[in-house]
Amino acid sequence: MINFQCDYAQGCHPQLLERLIAANMEPHPGYGLDDCCESARARIREACRQPHADVHFLTGGTQTNLIAIAACLKSHQGVMTADIGHIACHETGAIEATGHKVLPLPAEDGLLCARQIREACQAHYASPTREHTVQPGMVYLSLPTECGTLYTRDQLAAIYRCCRELGLMLYIDGARLGYGLTSPVNDLTLADVASLCDLFYIGGTKCGALLGEALVIVNDALKADFRYGIKQHGGMLAKGWLVGLAFDALFTQGLYFTICRQATEYALAIRNALEQKGIPLGYPSYTNQQFPILTAHQLAILQSKYVWEPWQTLPDGRQLVRFCTSWATTQQQVDSLVSDILRL
Amino acid sequence: MINFQCDYAQGCHPQLLERLIAANMEPHPGYGLDDCCESARARIREACRQPHADVHFLTGGTQTNLIAIAACLKSHQGVMTADIGHIACHETGAIEATGHKVLPLPAEDGLLCARQIREACQAHYASPTREHTVQPGMVYLSLPTECGTLYTRDQLAAIYRCCRELGLMLYIDGARLGYGLTSPVNDLTLADVASLCDLFYIGGTKCGALLGEALVIVNDALKADFRYGIKQHGGMLAKGWLVGLAFDALFTQGLYFTICRQATEYALAIRNALEQKGIPLGYPSYTNQQFPILTAHQLAILQSKYVWEPWQTLPDGRQLVRFCTSWATTQQQVDSLVSDILRL
Amino acid sequence: MINFQCDYAQGCHPQLLERLIAANMEPHPGYGLDDCCESARARIREACRQPHADVHFLTGGTQTNLIAIAACLKSHQGVMTADIGHIACHETGAIEATGHKVLPLPAEDGLLCARQIREACQAHYASPTREHTVQPGMVYLSLPTECGTLYTRDQLAAIYRCCRELGLMLYIDGARLGYGLTSPVNDLTLADVASLCDLFYIGGTKCGALLGEALVIVNDALKADFRYGIKQHGGMLAKGWLVGLAFDALFTQGLYFTICRQATEYALAIRNALEQKGIPLGYPSYTNQQFPILTAHQLAILQSKYVWEPWQTLPDGRQLVRFCTSWATTQQQVDSLVSDILRL
Amino acid sequence: MINFQCDYAQGCHPQLLERLIAANMEPHPGYGLDDCCESARARIREACRQPHADVHFLTGGTQTNLIAIAACLKSHQGVMTADIGHIACHETGAIEATGHKVLPLPAEDGLLCARQIREACQAHYASPTREHTVQPGMVYLSLPTECGTLYTRDQLAAIYRCCRELGLMLYIDGARLGYGLTSPVNDLTLADVASLCDLFYIGGTKCGALLGEALVIVNDALKADFRYGIKQHGGMLAKGWLVGLAFDALFTQGLYFTICRQATEYALAIRNALEQKGIPLGYPSYTNQQFPILTAHQLAILQSKYVWEPWQTLPDGRQLVRFCTSWATTQQQVDSLVSDILRL
Repeated sequence: MINFQCDYAQGCHPQLLERLIAANMEPHPGYGLDDCCESARARIREACRQPHADVHFLTGGTQTNLIAIAACLKSHQGVMTADIGHIACHETGAIEATGHKVLPLPAEDGLLCARQIREACQAHYASPTREHTVQPGMVYLSLPTECGTLYTRDQLAAIYRCCRELGLMLYIDGARLGYGLTSPVNDLTLADVASLCDLFYIGGTKCGALLGEALVIVNDALKADFRYGIKQHGGMLAKGWLVGLAFDALFTQGLYFTICRQATEYALAIRNALEQKGIPLGYPSYTNQQFPILTAHQLAILQSKYVWEPWQTLPDGRQLVRFCTSWATTQQQVDSLVSDILRL
Repeated sequence: MINFQCDYAQGCHPQLLERLIAANMEPHPGYGLDDCCESARARIREACRQPHADVHFLTGGTQTNLIAIAACLKSHQGVMTADIGHIACHETGAIEATGHKVLPLPAEDGLLCARQIREACQAHYASPTREHTVQPGMVYLSLPTECGTLYTRDQLAAIYRCCRELGLMLYIDGARLGYGLTSPVNDLTLADVASLCDLFYIGGTKCGALLGEALVIVNDALKADFRYGIKQHGGMLAKGWLVGLAFDALFTQGLYFTICRQATEYALAIRNALEQKGIPLGYPSYTNQQFPILTAHQLAILQSKYVWEPWQTLPDGRQLVRFCTSWATTQQQVDSLVSDILRL
Repeated sequence: MINFQCDYAQGCHPQLLERLIAANMEPHPGYGLDDCCESARARIREACRQPHADVHFLTGGTQTNLIAIAACLKSHQGVMTADIGHIACHETGAIEATGHKVLPLPAEDGLLCARQIREACQAHYASPTREHTVQPGMVYLSLPTECGTLYTRDQLAAIYRCCRELGLMLYIDGARLGYGLTSPVNDLTLADVASLCDLFYIGGTKCGALLGEALVIVNDALKADFRYGIKQHGGMLAKGWLVGLAFDALFTQGLYFTICRQATEYALAIRNALEQKGIPLGYPSYTNQQFPILTAHQLAILQSKYVWEPWQTLPDGRQLVRFCTSWATTQQQVDSLVSDILRL
Repeated sequence: MINFQCDYAQGCHPQLLERLIAANMEPHPGYGLDDCCESARARIREACRQPHADVHFLTGGTQTNLIAIAACLKSHQGVMTADIGHIACHETGAIEATGHKVLPLPAEDGLLCARQIREACQAHYASPTREHTVQPGMVYLSLPTECGTLYTRDQLAAIYRCCRELGLMLYIDGARLGYGLTSPVNDLTLADVASLCDLFYIGGTKCGALLGEALVIVNDALKADFRYGIKQHGGMLAKGWLVGLAFDALFTQGLYFTICRQATEYALAIRNALEQKGIPLGYPSYTNQQFPILTAHQLAILQSKYVWEPWQTLPDGRQLVRFCTSWATTQQQVDSLVSDILRL
């Protein structure tokens, strides 16, 4: 079976594995205070053009989200998100477990816009009973979104401007950031992202690392004492160097972008095949996730060779499914799927 | 420099690394629902002689502690621990962050006893204002303790009996369980431990794995819906198979015990040398952590070749320090330290 | 100005004030363990026909809701509610602050129905990734709802049956219970309510008391140790007898129902006048809250004599407002408003 | 039986009851936004000589403590307190339930000193593993303490200076503040207290009000958005004017001090009688709580006429008990007890 189900099925990119093999028996200081982490931090700061950013390495997305959000919010504040945002839908109430309400906003194709943030925030402050409701303290967005869509530079800049005016922190979940930044329709650089939010994370788990995310704190006001919160929430790895080493390799000679670009190209080849056959797509995604709407007949044909993720059953019985490429996807796998799609 | 500072400085045991290399490019189902985890669970159940135990793989000790404790306690309950317990002293209030008070009890050499648990619990229930204080709901103990000491089978059985009588859950933190169970002064088997508590964890991070702990739930009442809490607290690895694979290797042909036994023997060789020289020891530890009390002069001699962990400065200026062996310690390193101690 | 803004503007019913004056200098045991509370508990149990119910006196609705919900839910569970439910909209994230997600369901006229609860719950359990979402553990509903509507006996019975089948607790917020039970369209008795949920509260603050709510726990499984949670959340009044005394008076010779029935009748007189004039109503409320949709011109006329609560501005500029009667409303005030409405 | 058990057995001072009777049927705006509260705030600001202080009215001590502390601390911080501090011992883990650890310090006679705060704080920051422990963010102290002792002006000034140097907030629990400030051994004025901390509360429940505490926020940095937290934790009374009215009366013509001074004098008369008879006292209290150590024989004589609070049974069988006067205590009651003590 050929796996297009998700982008976290395999271990790590071979270059990272080599680094791990080489470093395995070396003693390293604990808790992320080692040279691998320091080197990775320096490379990430440079790639982001943020020489003063703080960089912390964590083990997964939910953990990173809850630690980042709990650190930024005051106790009476909540976090705004698209209604399909990962923190709203797929983290078992992790944010609420830290005491904060998630404030969902309706979002077409998973994208928030500055206007709706501004309106929701102004409506809050205009209300005479605002103290009886949760104060918005932060905006969370995913880049790319949960359905593979992307913010343009203008859209993100407008959201960030709006957040600064309204006293909201802006946090970007970059679980699949590499696949977004290497999309042909994307006009944001990593440095752009870093300059258009208060903090964000660069996903490693889905982009070539065994595990790990790199949280980048750009806003000085959020830097102090951040490591306490990491430890408090069980996110401080004894062997933090494992994640540091991975990011050091990923940000050496642009490996992160190289491997993500390849996966995105593969995904677009699949997309082209789907469009060629007139198969409708659930979301306008130009990243590593593709969401075709397939008939039971089409799925029956494909299921002998491929694994995908079911997403939603439509009222007419067709299924919206997700095909996902990753750094581990091969040309051969893509060729196979493309030709099978064209034969449908 | 020769590292005796901690037992989590290196990566993983070579056999685990080989398994990882072999499995790296294989696709695995996510979130711990894969064959590696299933196989590891089966091996652990067998090693524990608990065919019906639930086994969950987590990434670190603090995370495991907070998830296990939050899942067991009712909202008005707290957890009793030795005053030097890891949850009381070294986890940045992780338990309190889930809403529960840690209830420390004075403990000689880090060991709780059944009588003090009973007395504290009875004092709570005898008080007419008990509802104004936190109800004890659980006992947390470490095996070995934070200072390397061990509970005997009789002591642990008495504590567990006491807990059952008083309606308290008993949870054992086994971050260094392998080093405890292989101590020559230990009379507990892994199966004993499993039968004398409600849930416990087998430490991997400090005992040969890159990262990971195996939480074993013996008490049926605690099993339902446990994975929700893991996800909620950011402890569910996308690539859970990484930890499953490690434990599968560790519990194949007794590797876990083999490598821990070696480390414990090394530690006792160091202990013998210290005793031979009349160097006092801070705690009666017969596990992989040794706590000599050394003079400034002695430390000055040793510091050119060895790294250790400072623990406490005594009023007379001497230092209580920790020398720690691990699965990665070599005979040569131990021989070197032993002969340097004997030359002091 | 004549006050129709809310039902908590005045102090307490004169009979309660007399009881307070008489008892003021008597010493009472603290924390709700006094004879006033015991007598009130007995009267409430009898009125509910629940001789074994536990009754606790608290100071306000938000406090009662957060204590009751936090006591019932497991840490990975959330509480379902109508989207306009008080806990979802007007309690500053009080439930989330205890770590639990509020799960809103769309609700016409503020009413939930058994079918949507069942479908939402079944969808949760049918999902292969259910552990990545919050498990429903409880249903919260308001009787009457936030917009004055009422559940019929059949509707409530269906919801409770559904909750029992699905393992959900059912909790009823009765902030205005008296005004609901005395509505001419209501077919529920207090004993019905008590037999059709696991726990509920009888509102005092809005129904004649200076302050206080009576939480009635019917389900045996929820009774143990409840007072710990009250103290933990700051809800245990040193002078608990103040609230006990109020409920003792309210449940003597049916005073609670007498004064609420009067207020409901006044509200319906206002409703009749509105309907007679063809003024549209925002919600089909037959309780003490009425929600006319008025033009700017109509409001301008009324505002010289009356105070009401603004609710919502409609796109056409008209306003949905709330007129609220209470135990303190007089015939004269109602007559005045009715004749001014008819003159509009 | 004559009640010396506690200072919260009766309702409210007759002057407050008169005010309540007069205002009972008047409509007031809700949630503390009424004229009674505004007037009381003005009077309290003037009495504190803090024209810019924010004043909030809450219903009880535990509620006030948890709301104040949760609002001031960052999520990784804890609050230092004397080991017998109310938040450490008698609030069912209310602070921990908001996610924060209580950090107890040993305290002779319930009193903290600047030096121990400084040392504990410096030890935290000096530790290389400080991020693995809870950061002190605040000092909590009670004035008078739980055993009736008092800080001198110099002691409190030293603590506040120390807090400012170390970046700690200083919060004072004044549940019995009136009884402390009117003690003959006290050298602090209310204005002194207000100028020597960041926030504190003036107790009403134990000092003449039916219920209620007045939280005074002096530090500008803590003022913004405070009411959100009050609502979130269920502390915002619909009829906030009830507490405002009480404090308005208490701070009219110094009633608060007049009634507390009387009670303190009564307590000292009892103390004199105890000393005259050579009965030992458990604590050096010169406030409204007295802690004699009595023999079984003495208690047997007194128990036919008096009620007191048991505190502690000494190893020799004698009992440390508490006799408490209050605003409701009469000269006659005190005379009776004094003469019975002298007859022992």
